[in-house]
Amino acid sequence: MAKDMTLLWGSGSPPCWRVMIALEEKKLQGYHQKELSFEKLEHKSGEVMALNCRGQLPAFKHGDKILNESMAACFYLESEFKSQGTKLCTDNPKAHALMLQRIMECNNLSQKSGDVIYYKWKVPEGERHDSALKRNKEALTAEVKLWERYLKEAPGDFLAGCTFSLADVIVYPTIGYLFRLGLCEKKYPNLAKYYNALKSRPSIEATWPPSWLKDPKGGDVLKDI
Amino acid sequence: MAKDMTLLWGSGSPPCWRVMIALEEKKLQGYHQKELSFEKLEHKSGEVMALNCRGQLPAFKHGDKILNESMAACFYLESEFKSQGTKLCTDNPKAHALMLQRIMECNNLSQKSGDVIYYKWKVPEGERHDSALKRNKEALTAEVKLWERYLKEAPGDFLAGCTFSLADVIVYPTIGYLFRLGLCEKKYPNLAKYYNALKSRPSIEATWPPSWLKDPKGGDVLKDI
Repeated sequence: MAKDMTLLWGSGSPPCWRVMIALEEKKLQGYHQKELSFEKLEHKSGEVMALNCRGQLPAFKHGDKILNESMAACFYLESEFKSQGTKLCTDNPKAHALMLQRIMECNNLSQKSGDVIYYKWKVPEGERHDSALKRNKEALTAEVKLWERYLKEAPGDFLAGCTFSLADVIVYPTIGYLFRLGLCEKKYPNLAKYYNALKSRPSIEATWPPSWLKDPKGGDVLKDI
Repeated sequence: MAKDMTLLWGSGSPPCWRVMIALEEKKLQGYHQKELSFEKLEHKSGEVMALNCRGQLPAFKHGDKILNESMAACFYLESEFKSQGTKLCTDNPKAHALMLQRIMECNNLSQKSGDVIYYKWKVPEGERHDSALKRNKEALTAEVKLWERYLKEAPGDFLAGCTFSLADVIVYPTIGYLFRLGLCEKKYPNLAKYYNALKSRPSIEATWPPSWLKDPKGGDVLKDI
């Protein structure tokens, strides 16, 4: 039981989901948690701002330690609970290097996804250009193709070798989000295979976004990627 | 000596500089290295693409392990050469948590800096809006203020406690780049103090961007941040 941990989170947010998967993998169930609504702007509430001055979710606390950056929280949980639950960092230097590389590359995937998914939300109406959105879509397509190749060429069933690692904890929710928003499984068979195979992993099944369960139909903003 | 390592880098690039500082701190001098020119588009050359399919610098290789994401390379070097040179990750859980948090937050600082510094380069002429650049500058100003506060409230002289850590390796080059491009030292006294104090640290002095030494006058694109 992890009674000295608190997680404020929002359903469907890849950064929140990462931390929840890491907590499950490290057998840290039983933490204090509260689901907040992005739509109701609860991520800008005093409760969140007290933990995370950026007004973003997740907001995560363990005792007196605050880790709001989701990747930081995942690294921290693995480091503090090394011998508990799943070992998420390998001792093999080559697999470890690949894991670190894929984790940090995920920022590219997140950024480029966001540039398409949130285009209208980020860019005021008078500043929008079809040419910009087209360029963002092309950049995301190139990025997704890269990950499709990574999975095709991966030495095992996971992103960084033959075992589930922090790379999967961190990247899986982003890939899940892409498919939720209409990424075509036929165009990206290796990504789709990875996505579908891990759906039934207990840590992922247990943390599947409740809003996705409630409404299984996602969006289609990424259908032409 | 680190004869089994190769680093392709560009002068003044914060991601490249990070890796160079990490190599110095870990006493890994003597690696194969080659300075390339961004202006001449040498980061898109076959030599780089063979290591880094993104066509970006740094491109870093240790034996058969490739780590092109600068943060990944820094984490890797600390992990593989734990007992060599400076210990860049503390055993203290609170300082470790703070270090991880600051490292991952650096992506915000890099992204928002880039949105201002490279605005004209990233956005084609017909898509530029004064309102967008103004918003980018406001976002960067808020971000820089946050880091000013972090340093003001830091428990020691460094970003994550009383000792130089991976957080400093990773964030210092980004802060250096901001001042190089005109950030006002008077407006941000704690950032300036940190920046100036670390200039003479051997790892930083030894890796100071040669193009900055050659031309000590930087730009002023960030003078009103």
